[in-house]
Amino acid sequence: MTKTSAGNFFEDFRLGQTLRHATPRTMTGGDFSLYTGLFGGRFAVQSSAAFAKAIGYPNRPLDDLLVFHIVFGKTVPDVSLNAVANLGYAGMQFLAPVFAGDTLNATSEVIGLKENSNRKTGIVYVRTRGVNQDGVAVLEYVRWVMVRKRDEAAPAPGDHVPRLPTAVEPKLLGGACPPINVAAYDFALAGSPYKFGDYAVGEKIDHVDGITVEEAEHMTATRLYQNTARIHFDAFTAAQGRFGKRLIYGGHVISLARALSFNGLANAFHIAAINGGRHVAPLFAGGTVFAWSEVLATAELPGRSDVGALRLRTVATKDKPCADFPLKDGEADDPAVILDLDYWVLMPR
Amino acid sequence: MTKTSAGNFFEDFRLGQTLRHATPRTMTGGDFSLYTGLFGGRFAVQSSAAFAKAIGYPNRPLDDLLVFHIVFGKTVPDVSLNAVANLGYAGMQFLAPVFAGDTLNATSEVIGLKENSNRKTGIVYVRTRGVNQDGVAVLEYVRWVMVRKRDEAAPAPGDHVPRLPTAVEPKLLGGACPPINVAAYDFALAGSPYKFGDYAVGEKIDHVDGITVEEAEHMTATRLYQNTARIHFDAFTAAQGRFGKRLIYGGHVISLARALSFNGLANAFHIAAINGGRHVAPLFAGGTVFAWSEVLATAELPGRSDVGALRLRTVATKDKPCADFPLKDGEADDPAVILDLDYWVLMPR
Amino acid sequence: MTKTSAGNFFEDFRLGQTLRHATPRTMTGGDFSLYTGLFGGRFAVQSSAAFAKAIGYPNRPLDDLLVFHIVFGKTVPDVSLNAVANLGYAGMQFLAPVFAGDTLNATSEVIGLKENSNRKTGIVYVRTRGVNQDGVAVLEYVRWVMVRKRDEAAPAPGDHVPRLPTAVEPKLLGGACPPINVAAYDFALAGSPYKFGDYAVGEKIDHVDGITVEEAEHMTATRLYQNTARIHFDAFTAAQGRFGKRLIYGGHVISLARALSFNGLANAFHIAAINGGRHVAPLFAGGTVFAWSEVLATAELPGRSDVGALRLRTVATKDKPCADFPLKDGEADDPAVILDLDYWVLMPR
Repeated sequence: MTKTSAGNFFEDFRLGQTLRHATPRTMTGGDFSLYTGLFGGRFAVQSSAAFAKAIGYPNRPLDDLLVFHIVFGKTVPDVSLNAVANLGYAGMQFLAPVFAGDTLNATSEVIGLKENSNRKTGIVYVRTRGVNQDGVAVLEYVRWVMVRKRDEAAPAPGDHVPRLPTAVEPKLLGGACPPINVAAYDFALAGSPYKFGDYAVGEKIDHVDGITVEEAEHMTATRLYQNTARIHFDAFTAAQGRFGKRLIYGGHVISLARALSFNGLANAFHIAAINGGRHVAPLFAGGTVFAWSEVLATAELPGRSDVGALRLRTVATKDKPCADFPLKDGEADDPAVILDLDYWVLMPR
Repeated sequence: MTKTSAGNFFEDFRLGQTLRHATPRTMTGGDFSLYTGLFGGRFAVQSSAAFAKAIGYPNRPLDDLLVFHIVFGKTVPDVSLNAVANLGYAGMQFLAPVFAGDTLNATSEVIGLKENSNRKTGIVYVRTRGVNQDGVAVLEYVRWVMVRKRDEAAPAPGDHVPRLPTAVEPKLLGGACPPINVAAYDFALAGSPYKFGDYAVGEKIDHVDGITVEEAEHMTATRLYQNTARIHFDAFTAAQGRFGKRLIYGGHVISLARALSFNGLANAFHIAAINGGRHVAPLFAGGTVFAWSEVLATAELPGRSDVGALRLRTVATKDKPCADFPLKDGEADDPAVILDLDYWVLMPR
Repeated sequence: MTKTSAGNFFEDFRLGQTLRHATPRTMTGGDFSLYTGLFGGRFAVQSSAAFAKAIGYPNRPLDDLLVFHIVFGKTVPDVSLNAVANLGYAGMQFLAPVFAGDTLNATSEVIGLKENSNRKTGIVYVRTRGVNQDGVAVLEYVRWVMVRKRDEAAPAPGDHVPRLPTAVEPKLLGGACPPINVAAYDFALAGSPYKFGDYAVGEKIDHVDGITVEEAEHMTATRLYQNTARIHFDAFTAAQGRFGKRLIYGGHVISLARALSFNGLANAFHIAAINGGRHVAPLFAGGTVFAWSEVLATAELPGRSDVGALRLRTVATKDKPCADFPLKDGEADDPAVILDLDYWVLMPR
């Protein structure tokens, strides 16, 4: 008997089970500062309390992806400590803004279980919800992950694959975005004149800049989220593993791509939902991340004339500038591609 | 005559002398964020204002070791700028909680002086006290350090070795911990069901995880504490020195071991005292730190039924997982061991 | 047509043009923490709210150079994204203190344009002003920078070289420094007994300590300022460029030199103005920065008996301690020198 947690193995999960995750976390203005130091975000709404208040927020909200990383981090000890691979996300909705001073908690419900035919692993589907100190849901998403069994002979704990949406419907967007006073939205301060109506389906944007990642940076970021996945932190053990070195948290790439996307999408001030995403290839320290985006769809939000939604595919690459929008190499993935993310952003109309 | 401080040499100290250390420091929520980014702590009381308030704190306290590092950092320019070696600590008591917004100051009293027989160095014993803006003592400890003489021919400034406690008595513990409402202490949120009564003397816990340290990380941490010991920062000069490279601040290892110890000691939410500690071997960037703990003793606190104290030995190693609790190699230290710390933590009963 | 900004080229500027720069930025206590973690500053006024309030500030001000970096960062996308070289600064005045909670904006006026004879580049002179959320100017300075033309055949957009002051006049100093209650200024807490009157023109001070810079550190700092100059961040592209590697932001060296200067100038609590500065040579990660200062002049401030001004030259070097005050090697610059800064600091009288 040990007091150390070894995390859950596949056979430990049960359909319908609710996991209350540990370590509540009060957010601070310092989280903004450190997150800015790590990613360099420039979206005006998150950067300036004055800007945010002028357009209708009670204060500047924390970066949507920072909220995601904090909630995700809490789930790691219970859901993915024994994961072989993080397989996907679906239906991620940002439901309420989060401000410095708020305290975040998270719970997950097990909504699917499917043993693999080799009986060594199984797929666990969880619906995770992040809530603030008032019990208000701020984020909800489904994640599925391949988890090792402790004992191959153990019976499968269930057999159910949930139906998942391929995209969040536009009518579900906008809960974390108060009514925006577009007349008070200063496009020069925000860094671009382009509004919702200026983007067309099929339009591709090269975000131009590249950013190299150091070991100290991705570890600091991932610890900030209290994420304990050891592959990101322990070079000694990683040296004996699959990659021979530390692997950068996939969420780090998402945050880098988001920060880079400012150049071309400066008024896409809020991520309203993430439809899905694929970590196409791993990133290691020393790699330089570039990104480009394509507008997959545009949508009006029912009852709202202040903001519209763009559905974006943002692709991140490693050591390859994106002027020619790398994605596929014949049928296969372009070997430089590391992320393919499908999400909804809100922009002023 | 120079306006630059060269620090004190052994012959500059006097028994009974009081040193008022420079640079008062107001703590911020950002200190929590950056400290979390550097160490990844997950103790609920320090992480969540809501959790801390629910159990009886006026707000979440800052990490005990962060308070120690800040106070320690202030003493470096006066006490140890010319140190050959940091020899030990004794009787370290955390006396009052420290919150964001508090301003910390420090003074040290010289309580012992002993010249070494080579007449080139001597040992200086100081009792250091950290106080907040209201003059309330938050931390007190004795530290002794071997300091160079400026002039070998100078007479010894005194000859007195103070009697030091080998451990802080249980009746002295708990000043920095308000009465805890254990009924409101949520063990699921805190990350473990194990309470004070679940730990037995002699019990050993492998904290499992490892964490690799980068140069940028230990330098950022040590600067955050305004600690100026140059061996941590100056690779040019260090290249010509004893190790040939920068040495990581010993306190960095203590903070890493504390953060790792969450896995097995999640409810040990407060370090009440440090009885002593030994930096058994140096750590350099690139090393991966692991840790294990042994329960040396348990104690009730007079008049308190809310919390009990565990006396722990926490051992940190370099590039060696701790499943078999490395400590000694025959009579000698196991060459992987870098820290051997003896301290008291408080846990809910 | 692209929505990505490629920045302005020489022919895009117009004399008298006003550029409103993007991304307003609300400062936090976390900016203090991270800036301290990156540079290790120890000036008491910025470090302690209690100290600052005791001497007459409404709260502790943020570091002057942090304010400069934030304002400077905003100008990069509009002014220097296509710069070949940052040529100089003049007349930089700190006009009002900045506190956590303040929001900074910046505008620049084009005050000079001069095409180079090769017709490939031109020099752009801008007067940049940083303002807070109340529209109060906090910082003003002139900067000139050599910018590429998009099209060599384009006509020069103007031909005017402004007259610039070689130094800020003493009567213009002190706007960002409230009346100081010197009786309440605790010199022991501040770290040095030396006041304004203790420094003599011609006096040289070796700041002794050295500090090595890591890639993660300078990138984190520069992102904290939302500075987007890609040469600091993109190792992939830099590998093909002039230096073959990332170049450290020149402002990083200024901040390091300022932090090092505490040892010898502990009571020089405020940079009131920067007269000019030269980035003599580039710095790359792995280099260790040392610094020394010379007192160029002393000045009383009209109507003020609380503080006096020292005009300092602070020289920073790379991998060379400064005991012998390196500056010139015959007629040429000493090859170790990387910064030569001319500025005014205020000290209690």
